[in-house]
Amino acid sequence: MKKSFGSKTFVFPTPTWLVGTYDAAGKPNIMAAAWGGVCSSAPASVGVSLRKATYSYGAIIARKAFTVSIPSEQYVREADFAGIASGRDVNKFDVSGLTPVKGEFVDAPYVGEFPLVLECRLSHTIEIGLHTQFIGEILDVKAEESVLGENEKPDAALVKTFSYDPGSHKYYGTGRAIAEAFSIGKELLQ
Amino acid sequence: MKKSFGSKTFVFPTPTWLVGTYDAAGKPNIMAAAWGGVCSSAPASVGVSLRKATYSYGAIIARKAFTVSIPSEQYVREADFAGIASGRDVNKFDVSGLTPVKGEFVDAPYVGEFPLVLECRLSHTIEIGLHTQFIGEILDVKAEESVLGENEKPDAALVKTFSYDPGSHKYYGTGRAIAEAFSIGKELLQ
Repeated sequence: MKKSFGSKTFVFPTPTWLVGTYDAAGKPNIMAAAWGGVCSSAPASVGVSLRKATYSYGAIIARKAFTVSIPSEQYVREADFAGIASGRDVNKFDVSGLTPVKGEFVDAPYVGEFPLVLECRLSHTIEIGLHTQFIGEILDVKAEESVLGENEKPDAALVKTFSYDPGSHKYYGTGRAIAEAFSIGKELLQ
Repeated sequence: MKKSFGSKTFVFPTPTWLVGTYDAAGKPNIMAAAWGGVCSSAPASVGVSLRKATYSYGAIIARKAFTVSIPSEQYVREADFAGIASGRDVNKFDVSGLTPVKGEFVDAPYVGEFPLVLECRLSHTIEIGLHTQFIGEILDVKAEESVLGENEKPDAALVKTFSYDPGSHKYYGTGRAIAEAFSIGKELLQ
C-alpha cells in the first residue's frame, strides 16, 4: 500500500558534491550540493542546482565556471560543513583544512584531497523556482590512481562515494556491487 | 596523484530510475535513466535526460508528463532490461512482468511493484547536445509504508535503492548510514 506525500523531493539517490568557485576577490569557496546529476553524454555535462541566496551563485555567474569535487566517506564531516556554513562568513577551505587547487581548465578551485573531481565550464543557466540549475560542460575528470578499478576507470566502491537521503537526512555509503549493467537485463530479452 | 580522463561522465552516484510514459496508442512504457537528479526544492522538481532516439522522448513531448519509479535491489534485472530494450519493439511491462499503474495526477504510468514513485508534469525541456533534459514538477511522491523510516518519511536503506556507476558499469546497493546530515559538520563551525 502506497502513501502519498504530495510535492516533495524524496528522491534516491542524491549526491553529496562540493561545488568549487572563486569569489570576486579570488577567495576559493566550496558548497555542498545534493540537487544535481549528469545531464548529457555529449558534450559530457553535469547540472547542479543552487539557490540565488548562496555565495556560490554569484561566483558561478561571474566566472562561468565551477568544479565538482566528489568526497570519499572519510570527508563526510567536511562535506556536511560545506553545506552548513557560508563562504560569505568564512573561508571554508581554511576551516575544514581542505586544500584548494586551481583548476587546470577552468577558473575555479577543486578539493585536492578528494579522489574524483570535475572541471566544468558553465553552458546553461536554468531558472526553476527557488533554484537555479547551472549546467556545466565537463572539460576534465581527474581521479586518484587509487580509485581506478579493473578497467582503469574510476569505481564508486573505491572512491567510497556517499549519497544524501532527503527523506531520512542521513548520508549513506556505497554498498556492495549487485549486478553488471547492460548485462543482467539480457536475461529478459526475448 | 590524479590522472586526467578528459571530458567524461565519471560521476558518482548516478541513479537508476525508470521513466514511465504512455505512447500515442496508450501503451505503457518504461526506460532506465541514469542521467538525472533533483533540480529544485520549490516547486519540487526532477530532471531526467534522454536521447531523442528513445521511444520515451516522443511520449514525454506529446503528453507533457512522466513518472519516475525508483526500484529496490530485487528489481535490478528488470531495471537493467528497461535500459536495453526499446518500447518500439516490445511492451517492457509485459516482458518484465511489472505492473503499469496509471498516475493519479499525470498522464503517465508508474511501476506498481516499486517502493517509491514520482508523478511529474513536464515544466522545462532543455537541449544539451546529445540529450534532452526533461524537467518535471513533482506533483506527488508515493511510497510503500514498508519503506518509511523513523520519521515516517521514505528512507533509502529501506527502499534498498541502488545506483549506476558510469565508470565500472556496475550497479551498487545502498551501504550503511555514515552520518547525520546538517549535523556532523557542526563540529567544524567556529
